[in-house]
Amino acid sequence: MICISTTDADFEARFTELLSQARETTETVDRIVAGIIADVRARGDAALIDYTARFDRQTLTPGTLRVSAAEIEAAAASIPADLAAALDLAAIRIETFHRAQLPQDLRMTDAAGVTMGQRWTALDAVGLYVPGGKAAYPSSVLMNAIPARAAGVGRIAMCVPTPGGVLNPLVLAAARRAGVTEIYRIGGAQAVAALAYGTASIPAVDRIVGPGNAYVAEAKRQVFGRVGIDNIAGPSEVVVLADANNDPRRIAVDLLAQAEHDEAAQSILITDSAAFADAVAAAVAAELPTLPRAAIAGASWEAHGAMIVVDDWAQAVALVDRLAPEHLELMLPDPEAMFARVRHAGAAFLGGWCPEAVGDYVAGPNHVLPTGRTARFASGLSVFDFLKRTTWVSASRAALAEIGPAGVALAEAEGLQAHARSIALRLQS
Amino acid sequence: MICISTTDADFEARFTELLSQARETTETVDRIVAGIIADVRARGDAALIDYTARFDRQTLTPGTLRVSAAEIEAAAASIPADLAAALDLAAIRIETFHRAQLPQDLRMTDAAGVTMGQRWTALDAVGLYVPGGKAAYPSSVLMNAIPARAAGVGRIAMCVPTPGGVLNPLVLAAARRAGVTEIYRIGGAQAVAALAYGTASIPAVDRIVGPGNAYVAEAKRQVFGRVGIDNIAGPSEVVVLADANNDPRRIAVDLLAQAEHDEAAQSILITDSAAFADAVAAAVAAELPTLPRAAIAGASWEAHGAMIVVDDWAQAVALVDRLAPEHLELMLPDPEAMFARVRHAGAAFLGGWCPEAVGDYVAGPNHVLPTGRTARFASGLSVFDFLKRTTWVSASRAALAEIGPAGVALAEAEGLQAHARSIALRLQS
Repeated sequence: MICISTTDADFEARFTELLSQARETTETVDRIVAGIIADVRARGDAALIDYTARFDRQTLTPGTLRVSAAEIEAAAASIPADLAAALDLAAIRIETFHRAQLPQDLRMTDAAGVTMGQRWTALDAVGLYVPGGKAAYPSSVLMNAIPARAAGVGRIAMCVPTPGGVLNPLVLAAARRAGVTEIYRIGGAQAVAALAYGTASIPAVDRIVGPGNAYVAEAKRQVFGRVGIDNIAGPSEVVVLADANNDPRRIAVDLLAQAEHDEAAQSILITDSAAFADAVAAAVAAELPTLPRAAIAGASWEAHGAMIVVDDWAQAVALVDRLAPEHLELMLPDPEAMFARVRHAGAAFLGGWCPEAVGDYVAGPNHVLPTGRTARFASGLSVFDFLKRTTWVSASRAALAEIGPAGVALAEAEGLQAHARSIALRLQS
Repeated sequence: MICISTTDADFEARFTELLSQARETTETVDRIVAGIIADVRARGDAALIDYTARFDRQTLTPGTLRVSAAEIEAAAASIPADLAAALDLAAIRIETFHRAQLPQDLRMTDAAGVTMGQRWTALDAVGLYVPGGKAAYPSSVLMNAIPARAAGVGRIAMCVPTPGGVLNPLVLAAARRAGVTEIYRIGGAQAVAALAYGTASIPAVDRIVGPGNAYVAEAKRQVFGRVGIDNIAGPSEVVVLADANNDPRRIAVDLLAQAEHDEAAQSILITDSAAFADAVAAAVAAELPTLPRAAIAGASWEAHGAMIVVDDWAQAVALVDRLAPEHLELMLPDPEAMFARVRHAGAAFLGGWCPEAVGDYVAGPNHVLPTGRTARFASGLSVFDFLKRTTWVSASRAALAEIGPAGVALAEAEGLQAHARSIALRLQS
């Protein structure tokens, strides 16, 4: 953890260092992934079965690639009632928010008499990649699948690796709650290849979403163009803006909630009070040992944690925009006013009663968000990830007469005579 | 050109072959591009100057990388008045349509008392890649730059290679009309690297859009994640649905307008009349030799052109959805009804008075569209390419009491104790 103040002589250098800190090991996996994709394209299910045996220590057949309906039902039935109710509350709230996101079609007729518009339609088929092992989170299944359902996607195929045959029943229950029943127990680059190109058992999809390790990320990058992909997810981060009126312990736990995800996660406090920063640091030290994931959270806080003391909140806003954090907590008296001043953040949590963890589970907006400063240009997962637009134009003869000549002039200037002629022929008639 | 009918015994095999036909040479350029990007990161402007000397046969200095204001003004002043007026009409219409696309922010308060929403904001800085040489089209400059301006992007940096020093004055005039004055005379992977990572002379941007050759496409793929990118553009295509009431010559010219772009372009006619298909084929043969780009259009039509005769229009709709064409012309009596039945197309042109070329220049909707069957999941360029969303949540103490316990239960089930505690601490207070 570093603690810096905007009054430090070397503040700019140290903040720039914080910005440029690499938090991911950049493995060179592109050749390996290219080989796996080529193999899945060539050998289909047989390749999937081989890679799953090798990487996940599990023997599958074409008949057991897919999780059976009985397994899904059994998993769902095994969930304690309170957890099932919690999943249900989360699912309803996520669905409500994402349905509210659905855009309207556009239709307009202009002065020239040209009618035009854009129409939104859902993708036919999408693939959800769900990481296995320690990072298999039922909440992420809801956050990926429900927007796709809300958008109207017809077919959702989910891939989740089951190393050693272990599959979290809550993940299956969440999938079932979100209406996903086409689930394959495969992962890695081979799963991405299967979703992109299809095999005898797994029909190809049109877009693949969901986070994964370096192999999954590289595979998504390599199939991009053949299918659509979402952002490449990096380690998670939070920036908390908090003044001295906050309870240091709550802020400390909020910072640790981010840190416990991953050793590469990053938690940053920005405050206008050096004394408050000290109190939060002390509270972090006190809370850390009591956490089951103390080793992970401690490593993250040690390596990537930061506390920044500012003179005033205008400075804080400027730093937030440079950090463009995935998550932004505004634990301040007038959080909406502060939010209005910030340009770049994946998701914001306004006020002392709204810790970021609420957004991870039950608030409604998506928890799949742009990481690693990509909130400068990218957005969280939404119904827009599962829709595409078709624009359209309709012109009457009179409307063509009005706008056509300019089109002819431009086409001729570009040396595209057939373009010009396709308009001119109609103008002459 | 192939001509097939749904009544042919081998129709399905031949249509599938058409679908899977590769229209691009897949050069393996990834290592070369990786080297160029690394070099630009390491040596900045010096690397840009070296590559421009090598690939574009042009000697630049840091001071001449950027096109001067005087050059832009001189180019704009050199344009004939009718062309300037045509550019202006196109710019106004494109701006009107793209402003109409601007989405509304969302704000909602639900029964639990949680207020949440999503806010759209513009990107700070974007890069426009404009191909040089024969494919330097002023219309594309308008189509890329105006949506960025309509979205509210603060800074637009344009890169256009000028092989041998040649720069189309119409391209500069179009840029100026769209409000773009930061223009660099560089291209290729080196331009993409400069936009993504920045050099002493070219500050980095947040997103790069615009088509390019195989090197540019691979460079965009490699910088993806560092910055946002748009779709990888492939060769252009059109599918024309036309019945026998159409003038065969008009339809032939529409097909040739697509074919004249590029030897790899594809034009497909779908009709319910074999006699009409014959008449169109004859008209293509008659028109072709009269075109300045007859060699290109002829090569495209020869290699990739197709005419498909269907029994009824329901068959045609199914074929269109499998082709998911970039451009779709519906030259039919009730084109809106037919459009309503189609799911996948980049842009549609409805009725006999609306050839696709109108959309290339002056209709208003964007002409940068998903190619190569990617309209299954991708959309044309729009203001959405230059905006990102921040979601936000605000909860009162009472609202947290209502939804918080479910969040605690899910966090505990996922083994994320600090998440659970960050909610529980507030519930206890």
